[in-house]
Amino acid sequence: MSKVFVLGHKNPDTDSICSAIAYTHLKKELGMDAEAIRLGEANNETLFALEHFKAQNPRLVKRASDEVKQVILVDHNERQQSIDDIDEVRVIEVIDHHRIANFETTDPLYFRAEPVGCTATILLKLYKEHAVEVPADIAGLMLSAIISDSLLFKSPTCTDQDIQAAKELAEIAGVDSQEYGLALLKAGADLSNKTLEDLISLDSKEFEAGDHRFEVAQVNAIDVAEVLERQAELEVLISNTVAAKGLDLFVFAVTDILNNNSEAIVLGRRSDIIESAFESSVVNNRVILPGVVSRKKQIVPVITEALS
Amino acid sequence: MSKVFVLGHKNPDTDSICSAIAYTHLKKELGMDAEAIRLGEANNETLFALEHFKAQNPRLVKRASDEVKQVILVDHNERQQSIDDIDEVRVIEVIDHHRIANFETTDPLYFRAEPVGCTATILLKLYKEHAVEVPADIAGLMLSAIISDSLLFKSPTCTDQDIQAAKELAEIAGVDSQEYGLALLKAGADLSNKTLEDLISLDSKEFEAGDHRFEVAQVNAIDVAEVLERQAELEVLISNTVAAKGLDLFVFAVTDILNNNSEAIVLGRRSDIIESAFESSVVNNRVILPGVVSRKKQIVPVITEALS
Repeated sequence: MSKVFVLGHKNPDTDSICSAIAYTHLKKELGMDAEAIRLGEANNETLFALEHFKAQNPRLVKRASDEVKQVILVDHNERQQSIDDIDEVRVIEVIDHHRIANFETTDPLYFRAEPVGCTATILLKLYKEHAVEVPADIAGLMLSAIISDSLLFKSPTCTDQDIQAAKELAEIAGVDSQEYGLALLKAGADLSNKTLEDLISLDSKEFEAGDHRFEVAQVNAIDVAEVLERQAELEVLISNTVAAKGLDLFVFAVTDILNNNSEAIVLGRRSDIIESAFESSVVNNRVILPGVVSRKKQIVPVITEALS
Repeated sequence: MSKVFVLGHKNPDTDSICSAIAYTHLKKELGMDAEAIRLGEANNETLFALEHFKAQNPRLVKRASDEVKQVILVDHNERQQSIDDIDEVRVIEVIDHHRIANFETTDPLYFRAEPVGCTATILLKLYKEHAVEVPADIAGLMLSAIISDSLLFKSPTCTDQDIQAAKELAEIAGVDSQEYGLALLKAGADLSNKTLEDLISLDSKEFEAGDHRFEVAQVNAIDVAEVLERQAELEVLISNTVAAKGLDLFVFAVTDILNNNSEAIVLGRRSDIIESAFESSVVNNRVILPGVVSRKKQIVPVITEALS
């Protein structure tokens, strides 16, 4: 069997990169010639995890079809979030924890999606189902993914299964979840080396709802006000993105990782839906979203519903 | 939690009905208020299995949303193959072994598709993962589904996993796979009480490829020539269906279950693709398909590719 790429989504987060590495390890143990790749730069949080567990950052790849015929998707299934030439390769497996959309195959495949907080939680099941031991460094990366996606178990996306998986993985990795987790999230909230362009693009995802297209960027921060101080400059960049991509709506959410709230800048011709959708006033293109930390569970479904 | 319907596809085959029953049993054991339903008449093969294992035929239901808010799909995921009001209920789980297409959700869900020959093979894994014992009668129904989908292990869709699952299930059910299996397939190939309308509709599925829509009906037979003797009458009925549904192509495949070949009647404005797609001559709207027994693996992908 020729080589297979294992890849997470564009603007990769810690789950996308760590789950690509973790699933690649499992597939190799099962005899597949697999390589984890990434579609963009690893963020500070992911780099912290990779360094802590002495793991190699996967290779950045922009086109799969030049090198492989088959790919495995982790942590996403929507075509527009995947590698640009996704239609030129065959997707043989998907391991994911998101909604399913814009995904279609000609042939049957292995598709495992579960409504849990993190891809790594599903991967731990797969390791067990195949009776393959999780090495300590891989366990550390999987734990990092769960902590990242669940904001240290505080996000409403976090399930009992994620908490249980994290417990097992922390033991194998030999770290304290709370202590390591806070250090990991703080590394991710360090925005000092980020440009404003980075903020609105590094963890940004595009979605479709009915005939509308919208994008939601999210950054974690310790000091939300500091990020939003530069609203005027951010709005210029966001407006350019809206125009260039023909988007109907752009939401830039800044999430306070210590207090678990978000505040967002909303722009685009359909930003009119935000007030009623979130039952919160929009003042000067800004909206406060109390208790909102999860794009997947608390932002995307609300906007999708409002636009459909 | 309010009641959840578990349902297979329209024109239900043995896997759709038996897997709905088997998964409902598992979900009930796990505490869900679930009911297996069917979307159409059970065929002779399925009735044979139900009678042999003294199981009740699920209730025929045409609309889900009058009774439930949530459904679980087994043995299919494509919207057009599901219950008519599928868009008015929430799909909370899918267990399937087909390609993925025309499927979209707003929220994450449990989606388990595997490239095996039968849904029941995946269900046996789920019973094991949840450490729930399979009762003898349910095991018999699951075995029936595997035998039906794999044409007694002879279809190219049949995997080692299906054979292994069937072995375990036959033991629990206390039957001999070969002996019971042949009786089951023969019951399914008994077309004596079928009208010609039945033949082209009972096990028929609609597909999309690019801008094209096509339908593939399949019947199992002991004597293929006897079925095709009435070609003229069948062609009238098929042409009416093509016109009524606005199809681009209709393939009516009659499969010889003893010798594992098929012969098909092909009609519709895009029947021109058949000769090159299957590398076989079309004479008088008829084409011989040596070794072809699987709609999913040997017919649908070939047509999809040719029409795309």
